[in-house]
Order: sequence, then structure tokens, then C-alpha cells
Amino acid sequence: MSILGSRWPLAAVLLLSAAGSPLSSPAAFAAADPLPSWNDTSSKKAIIAFVERVTRTGGPDFVPAAQRIATFDNDGTLWGEQPMYFQAFFILDRVKALAPQHPEWRQREPFASILKGDMKAALAGGEPALVELAMATHAGTTTEEFDTIVRDWIATARHPKTGRRFTEMVYQPMLELLAYLRANDFKTYIVSGGGIEFMRPWTEQVYGIPPEQVIGSSIKTRFEIRDGKPVLVRLPELNFIDDKAGKPVGINSHTGRRPIAAFGNSDGDLQMLQWTAAGPGARLCLYVHHTDDVREWAYDRQSHVGRLDKGLDEAVARGWTVVDMKNDWRVVYAFEKK
Amino acid sequence: MSILGSRWPLAAVLLLSAAGSPLSSPAAFAAADPLPSWNDTSSKKAIIAFVERVTRTGGPDFVPAAQRIATFDNDGTLWGEQPMYFQAFFILDRVKALAPQHPEWRQREPFASILKGDMKAALAGGEPALVELAMATHAGTTTEEFDTIVRDWIATARHPKTGRRFTEMVYQPMLELLAYLRANDFKTYIVSGGGIEFMRPWTEQVYGIPPEQVIGSSIKTRFEIRDGKPVLVRLPELNFIDDKAGKPVGINSHTGRRPIAAFGNSDGDLQMLQWTAAGPGARLCLYVHHTDDVREWAYDRQSHVGRLDKGLDEAVARGWTVVDMKNDWRVVYAFEKK
Repeated sequence: MSILGSRWPLAAVLLLSAAGSPLSSPAAFAAADPLPSWNDTSSKKAIIAFVERVTRTGGPDFVPAAQRIATFDNDGTLWGEQPMYFQAFFILDRVKALAPQHPEWRQREPFASILKGDMKAALAGGEPALVELAMATHAGTTTEEFDTIVRDWIATARHPKTGRRFTEMVYQPMLELLAYLRANDFKTYIVSGGGIEFMRPWTEQVYGIPPEQVIGSSIKTRFEIRDGKPVLVRLPELNFIDDKAGKPVGINSHTGRRPIAAFGNSDGDLQMLQWTAAGPGARLCLYVHHTDDVREWAYDRQSHVGRLDKGLDEAVARGWTVVDMKNDWRVVYAFEKK
Repeated sequence: MSILGSRWPLAAVLLLSAAGSPLSSPAAFAAADPLPSWNDTSSKKAIIAFVERVTRTGGPDFVPAAQRIATFDNDGTLWGEQPMYFQAFFILDRVKALAPQHPEWRQREPFASILKGDMKAALAGGEPALVELAMATHAGTTTEEFDTIVRDWIATARHPKTGRRFTEMVYQPMLELLAYLRANDFKTYIVSGGGIEFMRPWTEQVYGIPPEQVIGSSIKTRFEIRDGKPVLVRLPELNFIDDKAGKPVGINSHTGRRPIAAFGNSDGDLQMLQWTAAGPGARLCLYVHHTDDVREWAYDRQSHVGRLDKGLDEAVARGWTVVDMKNDWRVVYAFEKK
């Protein structure tokens, strides 16, 4: 302070403090970085360059805030999906919880195998078996009852390999990306093949994404007056599959807008990325590529969950951003930092 | 100014100007009223009392901003619906515009009657005829082509009785109500039996309601790659009827929340109001009752469009707010003020 002398007015001292050493230290620089869990590679640079382009007022690629729609797949993009979709663990736990009310399940597949702990046999029936399991565990309640069931489960259930709660297995770099986009007036949506009512009870707390910005697969519901009280009853009937070609349909149905940025990790997200890319102006299409078998899982073209094959070819051919989890992410899960 | 004398500092003069005569004049008082087109009757008082209750921080009925969801029917609640739903005029104009590509329509009902100008005969076929007309005029294009068709029509078509554009036939008191709720951090939604893609192209400009907050009836769409370009094609297949018991279903599907305020004008809105009323805490359920056959139309229990019968009984029995258009609204349409 001695070089300033006592004649300098307070305002000038404050200005110099703000521009001076505290903020130019490495720690302060990191705090100002909106994506601190991303290494300084091409993926991070592509994200930041895109956001700067579409938010630069008067620039050639400026997009008004109301049109800054960003859509995120959930399984494998915002949280993990191995060794199977986390919603499948919910289904298994629900079968066990409901079994006392269904003695017939002990003799009936796919329930019998699940109750014996033989997952492989239970899933041998393929998609029809899965749909039967989903209906038996997701229908038959009111929407409010189902909300409570999901909240109770997600608060206590743990992943069999990591021992963590499923909501701890969200990707820290993607949380930062969501926050960075929202800080730049983007509206962030989830667009998932998972159940819309399975996600809504916890996405606001975990991702900062409110229920009205969650798009997913659904079963039909019916309005009824029960004991004088209006309720919505969940029916064992598929309503909409929000996967593959269903994703652009779901986005249009819910928003009436085309995203300018879309994020996925599998071939199930390809049509969402194609539809996003086809709009006018600057676009960001990004695939998360699971390449880290130490901190997470490594899989792509051969995986039965989250297969990324055609999508990877198209991403490379079209110059979309492909995140290499192993090299692009300094941290995978938030709990690693603790 | 003479009483102030020249010694008064400028700031004090400005302060006195702000608090002084200009703002206490009747005109300035009206400018501070959030609902100037509403007469000072019980309906207006009920609206303001409700908003003050749910927004009073620390009060017993306080509702966090994120949960302040308000849903509005469109036909007969935000704009007119006589002598028939305005979307029906769109259908008629589309039949005429498409007729050269469909020479067979000259011999086929309900198209033949429309082309001869005999509306009564055209609609004699009831709902099947209407569905056929809707499919013939709303499907077969991409979502973007349909958006353009609606924009072009709404910019030029005029109501047969008033000679006004349909978007001029919106209710000024309801525009003020929408703005008042949004100023109090409500999120305002349209929940209409009308077509979702018929409304979305113009609701933001006319009502300040963006496309993602429009819920309506829909046909199915399909994702396709046409000439290398991804598009959503509108199919001649019903997807969802957002009317009566469909309204709570549509609201839940789009928002995952229960409204705390709901506004309608017909029995088609009754289930939406029932579902809204059944939630915990303060609720506002309001019916617009069409009682003014001079400035608008008077109709309720016997009307084939916008029938209000069971809903009126239930509103009275439960103490919901029933707006008497003739006595509660100082202005009906914004253009009356000019």
C-alpha cells in the first residue's frame, strides 16, 4: 500500500484491489472457471466457444434467451447406467416390496426369478418381460402415491458396486455444465428414455431441473374421483416411449421448440442430436463417451446398455463434440472430491 | 412550485413530485391498479386477496414461486368462442384452400357442404365429421410447415361478426390478470381443448405465454429424415384430447405439478378446477360466466359451444369465483378502449 500514499481516494484503492493480486492467483482463477472439473481440452473449449457465440449481443450467432433450449439425456449422460439402468434397480426393489401382496409371483416369470435373486433368468424374457415388470411396479397407484414411493426409494437405495446412493452417481462435470448454461439464460431439459414420473421427484434437487422441464417415457393416467377426492390413477398401459425417434417427438410435444444444444451418450440420443443439429444458426451437439474403466465404466459399440455405435460414427463424421471421459474430465463423480 | 421556494434542493423537489398531486389523481391511481378493466366487485377482490395470501412471505398461505402454477382454458376464457370455436374457422378456410388438390371433396361430405357454404349441413355429421375435417386440415405437413400455415392465417383471418382479427378478440381483463399473476411470479399456462400446435405460433405474442407453457389436444407426429433433413411429420391420428378429464392428465403430463389457480368457462374445465381445488393450501378456482349479450355473447347451460351447466352448480356450491362478464368487466375487448 505504500506506493499509493495517503492521497489516493478510497474508490481507487478498491478498484486496484479488485484488479490486483487476489483475483489473479491460481486459486481465484479456478473459482472463476465455470467448468472446473473439465480438463482444458477441445471438448471444454467447444462448449465455451458455443455459449459465447450464442450469447454475444449483436453478434452474428446471437440467440434470444427464450430460444436457448438445451436438452440432456439422463442415463449415462447425467448419471451412471451400469451395470444396468438405475430405474431397473427400482423395479427389482419394488417387485420384492410388492411380493407379499402377490403370492402368485413365486410361480410366475419374470417375477419368480427376481424373487430368487436370479437376475439373468428374469431378464431372459427380453423386452416383454421388462414391460411386464414395469407395469407391475409403476402402475396401480395414484400419481401422488407413486411420487412418495420414488422419493422413499431414492433416499435410501444404494448402487451395488459403489455402495453410493444413486443420486450421488451424477457426473460432476455435467452438473457444472448445467449450471453454466443456466447462468447464460439457457433453459435446461431432461429428455430421457426413463420414466418421467420416476425422475421428476428428485431432478430439481439433484440437477436443478424442475418437473416441468423433465421429458420421459410414460404410462397412461386417468382422472378419477375417489372417496370424493380427485386423483390421477396410473394405468398399466404404455403412453409414450421417449427414446430414439421418440426424443424429438417428446421435445416438440413438451416445448414446441427445437433445442440449440443437445447432450447424449448413446444411439438412443442420435435422433435428438440430428434434430438439434438441423436447425438454423449455431448448434452444439455433444456425446459423452464412456472411456474410463477405472473411475467409471468403459463401453460403447458392444454394450447392451447405452450402446454408442452409429452415433459415434455420425458424431465423428459431422464434427460433433465427443467427450472422452477419461481425458476430458478431471473429476467424474462429485464424491471423488471429498 | 412557489411554496417550495428556491432553497429546496433538487432531490427534495423530485421526491415531492413523486409523492404529490400527479400520482394521487384518479388517472394515476388507475395506472397503479393491476386490474384496471375489472370493476371493483367481489370477483376482483377475490383474485387480489388470493394473490396477496400466497405471496405474503412468512404468511400461513405462502407458496414458493416455483409452485405458483396457474392454468387457463383458452376458448371462452382468454378469447371468444362464438358463434363457433375460432379454430373451426381455420378448418373451414383450410378446406377451401386445399380443395383444388382434392377434387373428390366436391362429392364427399362433410367437405362438399363446406365448399357450398352450407355450414349447418357440414356439421350435421357430428364429431366423426369434425374429426375427419381436423385430420384433413391439420395433418400431412411437417410441424414447421404447419406453424407457417397457422401464422399466415391468424395474421389475416377475421371474425364474421365483429370483422376483427381473432387475436383482437381476447379479453382485456384476462390479459391484465395474466400479467398480474406473472408480476407475482406465477407461471401461466394455457390448458385448452384446442390444438396445441394451432395455439403455439401466436400465444407468446398475444398472451405472453411461451410455447412450452401451452397444453392442448394433439395429433401424433413422426420423426423422419426427408432429403437428408430431419423433420417431424404430422399424422392423421389422434394423440390426446385435452378436454374434461383430459385436462388434469395433460397438466400433469406437461408440468408434473398441480396448479394452485385455474380459470375456465365451461363444463370442459370442471375437472381441471376440481383437481386444482383438491390440493392443499390456498386455491383460486374461477369461472368466466358469459352474461353480456351486448358487448359479447350471453350463454351458459343450453349452449352447444362452451356449455356451463354442471360447472356453474359446482362453482356456486363450493364458493368458487364466478365472473359475471356484464357487471365485473369494465372492458371486454382491448379494442373497445380505442
